[in-house]
Parts: sequence; C-alpha cells; structure tokens
Amino acid sequence: VSLWFIQCYPFRVLIDELATPCALVDLDRFESNAKRMAEKALRLGVRLRPHVKTHKCVEAARIQTDLHFGGITVSTLAGARAFAAGGFSDITYAVPIAPQKIGDAADLHTEIGHFNLLVDHPDTVRAVEEVAASRGIILPVFLEIDCGGKRSGVDPASDVAQILVRLLADSENIDFRGLLTHAGHAYRARSRSEAYEVACQERNLMTAIAAEVRDLGVEVPEISVGSTPTLRAIDDLTGITEVRPGNYVFFDAFQAAIGSCDLDDVAFSVLTTVISVHTEQERAIVDAGALALSMDPGPSHVDAECGFGLPVTLEDQHPLPGLRLVGLTQEHGTLTGPGTQALHPGTRIRILPNHSCLSAACFDRYHVLRGTEVFDEWHPLKGW
Amino acid sequence: VSLWFIQCYPFRVLIDELATPCALVDLDRFESNAKRMAEKALRLGVRLRPHVKTHKCVEAARIQTDLHFGGITVSTLAGARAFAAGGFSDITYAVPIAPQKIGDAADLHTEIGHFNLLVDHPDTVRAVEEVAASRGIILPVFLEIDCGGKRSGVDPASDVAQILVRLLADSENIDFRGLLTHAGHAYRARSRSEAYEVACQERNLMTAIAAEVRDLGVEVPEISVGSTPTLRAIDDLTGITEVRPGNYVFFDAFQAAIGSCDLDDVAFSVLTTVISVHTEQERAIVDAGALALSMDPGPSHVDAECGFGLPVTLEDQHPLPGLRLVGLTQEHGTLTGPGTQALHPGTRIRILPNHSCLSAACFDRYHVLRGTEVFDEWHPLKGW
Repeated sequence: VSLWFIQCYPFRVLIDELATPCALVDLDRFESNAKRMAEKALRLGVRLRPHVKTHKCVEAARIQTDLHFGGITVSTLAGARAFAAGGFSDITYAVPIAPQKIGDAADLHTEIGHFNLLVDHPDTVRAVEEVAASRGIILPVFLEIDCGGKRSGVDPASDVAQILVRLLADSENIDFRGLLTHAGHAYRARSRSEAYEVACQERNLMTAIAAEVRDLGVEVPEISVGSTPTLRAIDDLTGITEVRPGNYVFFDAFQAAIGSCDLDDVAFSVLTTVISVHTEQERAIVDAGALALSMDPGPSHVDAECGFGLPVTLEDQHPLPGLRLVGLTQEHGTLTGPGTQALHPGTRIRILPNHSCLSAACFDRYHVLRGTEVFDEWHPLKGW
Repeated sequence: VSLWFIQCYPFRVLIDELATPCALVDLDRFESNAKRMAEKALRLGVRLRPHVKTHKCVEAARIQTDLHFGGITVSTLAGARAFAAGGFSDITYAVPIAPQKIGDAADLHTEIGHFNLLVDHPDTVRAVEEVAASRGIILPVFLEIDCGGKRSGVDPASDVAQILVRLLADSENIDFRGLLTHAGHAYRARSRSEAYEVACQERNLMTAIAAEVRDLGVEVPEISVGSTPTLRAIDDLTGITEVRPGNYVFFDAFQAAIGSCDLDDVAFSVLTTVISVHTEQERAIVDAGALALSMDPGPSHVDAECGFGLPVTLEDQHPLPGLRLVGLTQEHGTLTGPGTQALHPGTRIRILPNHSCLSAACFDRYHVLRGTEVFDEWHPLKGW
C-alpha cells in the first residue's frame, strides 16, 4: 500500500503547506482501527460488512474489508454505484428503499450480483416484488427491525413483523436474506458499559426474533447488527452472522466521550488556521465553521460543555488545554478560554469533530497522512 | 432570463421526476426576494453588495446584483475565484484573512481590480502590508468592527480599534476602505421588532465609530453593515454606505420564525421521499437527513419544538399540519405526529430547512423551478 502511495502522489507535502480548512486522515490510526475491528469480528465469528458512509472512499473501504469477504454497507444509491464501479460486488443498501428507487436498485443488482435491499413496510415489499417480477429477476431483501432506535425498522412487538416475513418468504421474486437492525440508541449511551447493555439487548432481541421466524418455517440466513459503540463494547455475538459498523475507522470526539475509543484512536481531523484573536475577551476565531465541522451537537448528554469539536495540537493531536470551540457559523469557529492567549493569527491547530461522518461529508478530498506528511488524497463520493 | 433557461435546459422536467433528496429553488420567489431587497437598498440610499455564500452560484448572484453596482461579498477564496471567473470584479472577502492566504488574495486583487480584505488584528495588518509591499501593490482593506455578535471584529471599546485605524491609514501599501460589521446577534432576535433594535444599534455604533475615526483625520470611504434580519427590519440607514445581506434571496424556516419573512417567501427547499411509515407510533422516515438539511438547530429560541425543518406540501409549499421533523441522522429524517397517518412509502414532500445556507451547501446542484416545472440547474461552488 505504501509503495503505491509513493508512486501515485506527485510530491512530498507537509501538513504545514495545506490550505485550510481541510480534512486530514491519519493513516496509521485508520489502519489500526480497521485491523482491530476486522480481527474482533473474526474472533467473534461474524462477517464484517463495514458501513462506508463514514468516509465514502473506495481506497478506505479496501483497507476496511481486509481479512473479510469484501461486503460493504452503503446508505445511498450513488454510494452503491461508486463502490460497484470500484470493484465491490456485495453491497447492502441499509436504508428502507423508496419505491421510486427500486428500478435503479434492480439495475445495480443485475450488474454486480449482490445488491441487498431493506424493507420495513408492506407497500415497499409489494413494490420490490413488482419490479423484480416485471424483470424476471429475484432481488435479495432484508427485513429491518427496530431494536430500540425508534427510527426506521419494524416494531418487533407489532403484527407487522410477521406479516412482512410472510410476504417476503412467500414471494417468488424476493430472496429473503434475513433480519437487519441498527442500534441507533447506542448513541444515547454515556459509557462503554451502557453501550454494552444496548449491544446485549440488540443481540438478544435479534436472535429471539430470528427464532420466532424460524418457528414459522422460514429460513433466516443472516442476522445483521451493528454500530460502532455496540461493537466496541460487546464480546459475544452468538447467533449473529454479520456486523456493520462504520464510524470506527475514523472515530471522533463523540465516540471518545462515550467510551468507544481513546482520543488517540481518532483518525479524522480538520486542519484550521486562527484568523482572529481577542486576547482581552479570551476569544479566537478559526477558519473552520459549520461547513467544515457540521453543526452536530456532539456528546452533550455526557458533557454539556462539549462544544462543536475538540481542539488538538497540530502535530501530536493532543487536546489543547483551556480551549473550547463554543460556536460555529458558516465559515467561523469561535474558541474561548485562557488557551486563546497562546494563539495568533496564522496559528494552526486541528479539530477532532464531534461527528466525523458529517464533517468528512463537508470535504471533496481528504489529505491522507503518516505523521505530518501527506501521502495521498482520497476523494469521497458525493450526492445521492 | 427565462428564454435563456428554455434554450439551455435540455428538456421539460417536472418535480415528480426528480430523484430525492434534492435541492429546489423557487425562481419566482427568488427573483421577488432579490428585487425587494435591491429596491429597498436603493430607497435607503445604500449600495447593495450581497453575500453570495448562501447559494454560491454565479447565475444567482447576477439576479441579485441587478439594479446595483455589481459588487458581491464572499467568505472563501474559492468563492472569490469562482465569482471572478464568472465576471464579478468587485468582491469583498468578509472574513478576517489568514496570513497564509494573503498571497493568493493579492493575486486575485491584481487580476480583478477590486478584492477587498478584512482585518481585525495588528499582526494581520502587518502581514497584508508586507505582501503588498513585496509586490509593489496597494491592497484595499476594511477594518472589521464587532458590533455585538462576539465573533470576529475589533471590540470598539478597546484601544485596538484606534491602533488598527492608524496602522491602516498610515500604510503606503494599504488602501483603507472603511469600516465593516456583521450584526450576528440579530439572529438572537425573536421578532422583527427585536431585529429592528439590533439594526439601529448596529447603524448607530458604526456611524459613531466612523465619526471618531474621521476626527483622527482619517477618511472613511465606506461603512458596510448588514444581515438579512436587520435589513428586513430597518428603514433608515443614514450614514451607512453599503449593505451585505445574503440569506434574503432564499430565506428559511429560521428567518420566517423571527419575522424576517413570510413562509411564502422561502425560495429554497429540499424535496424528499417518505421511505418508512409506522402508523401506530405516529412516525415516518424521509430520505432527507443531516447530509441534506444540516444539523442546524433552527429557531429554538422562538419555538423549542421547531425541529430540524418545516415539512410543507409538494406543490404549494403549505405547512403540513400535524407533522414535526424531530430528528435527523446521516440519511434519515424522522417525522412524528398525527400527520404521519396521511403518509405512505413513496409520498413526496418538501422541507423548508432551518438554515438554507447550510442546507444548500449539502448539494452539488439546485433544481430551479417555476411552479413545479424544472427550468434550470444551478451548480454551486464548493470548497475553500
């Protein structure tokens, strides 16, 4: 990998030479995060199908799928197309599909061989069936279960789950792939032990539902779960076949605050320059605003004073004492605290964003570093 | 303008045919908003230098600068370059310039003739002077005043303001253009009358500071103010020479909530499709999430229940009763309320975002409509 980088990247660039704001990926940390999760999935006996929405880069997904079967998870059709073009041939589209998008999804399935869809409503099942029947194909479909996140997915306590299983299992044009869930409520956890509770509840619920479905005489080939907090916390996934974490390769200030990682694991940061200092008011302004960091409110349930990201040193990414990023507008970030005394116009720092997925989506390229040297550029996919 | 659209846009497209999520610009409303502000500026005897950060499109800026001198405001160098390439030759870069960016700014000034910089710190003034001197040019510079927003800008009560004026006025390589402020605290207003108070305070403070500077024997050619809420509220700008509102061409749910506009004025919306409905739980999911709407918390100081944007009907953009957009994750928006009973997978609605500048920045194209017919695509500039 390193040799390839050296060959492709035109010249040696140091972090000091980059225009700000810009996105940085610490490749050592990224690789280490990827490897740790891949090895854990092997140890727990589950397939790793990483969610690539965090970075949306083919290069990054290749590193992430090392040691595993090469399947990935996406949340947009544009993402699916880009990764298909990048050579990925087993992709799960982990958002309930809009009826209007089924035709495009069917095209993609025909092209790559394995494009798995998600449903949680009878109307959508019928729409999938119609499209598949009209083309004479069989589309692979997961049933999404709401394990407590209260977003999409069938309420397992309702009758709808059974109705949907029947519809899916009985359809001649649907290959019922199994059950899928995302424990979004793990992001409400305040610690690794709370995330562990959510992870156990997610696993136990999913295996219990699978048992009920099997009692109906329906095969459940896959039980797919996963989020970064739950997978970092749990150590027993008996009964589960597949996991789909995404954020773990980058991590962020939120994940560190709830115990999913150490700050030293965070592989994504935003490089920014101080543009204004008001010493008497203990305030400084940086050129990273809402369009570089996103307005994600961060781990405010753990730390009401968390601000909009964590200022860290340029070279070592150590937290900068006495500095809080208290406000963001479109192109301004406002720092306050005694730490502003050490800042001058032109000072460069890095910010660990609250939510790396949303911050990364602000950029059309990431500068990929080892230490403070830029080795490569990754170009994330955009749009839908 | 219409003829040009008809000539350039390849075929007749209706709103129903667009893939979601996508960004819509209602051109009738946009033009009407642009015209109203342009006429008001004429009536108040000030030059209009619109801030184009809201849309970042050359086509949009051309409409906005109609009736006026053609000057615009930007907040990134990339924006400045793109608008310079689009024929704009008088551009103010309304963010204190980072020392590292002055060389590029000087290049741009040399290219277009009028690229006005902003400073609020002595170090930056000296850095601008150095670059200009080394090239044997004179750079036009504004002093930014903090009129209460507590972001960038000199505290007018401190000694720094006078020191900076002296530095600027005495420099042989700086053309001191005058004073500039942005009343960011107008966004804390809860009504048009509160915004009016901020607007008067901004005007009075700026004209008072200008008088003090003139007492020092220093000319103040320009006094530049402006934000959408203050300019919508005020009707007397005696002493002010220039205004720089930006959001007013699009408006958004926030501006409507604080009385800057009616909901019928909002010209930017996000088209989205319902992908999941859980009738018993009065919950539905749309395919517009944080990457389409931004996580801007909206006018929560006016309406604690404002949610992440306002759901409106597809064709007429009327508020949809009994629906609140209570949550956003990367690609999911969660609607709750009795209004979900009327939704089905595939139903299309529009969302008026909390903050159109941040939502518009999520898209690489806007579909420009008259009514429900797409006339054109605008491609906003990205990056820094």
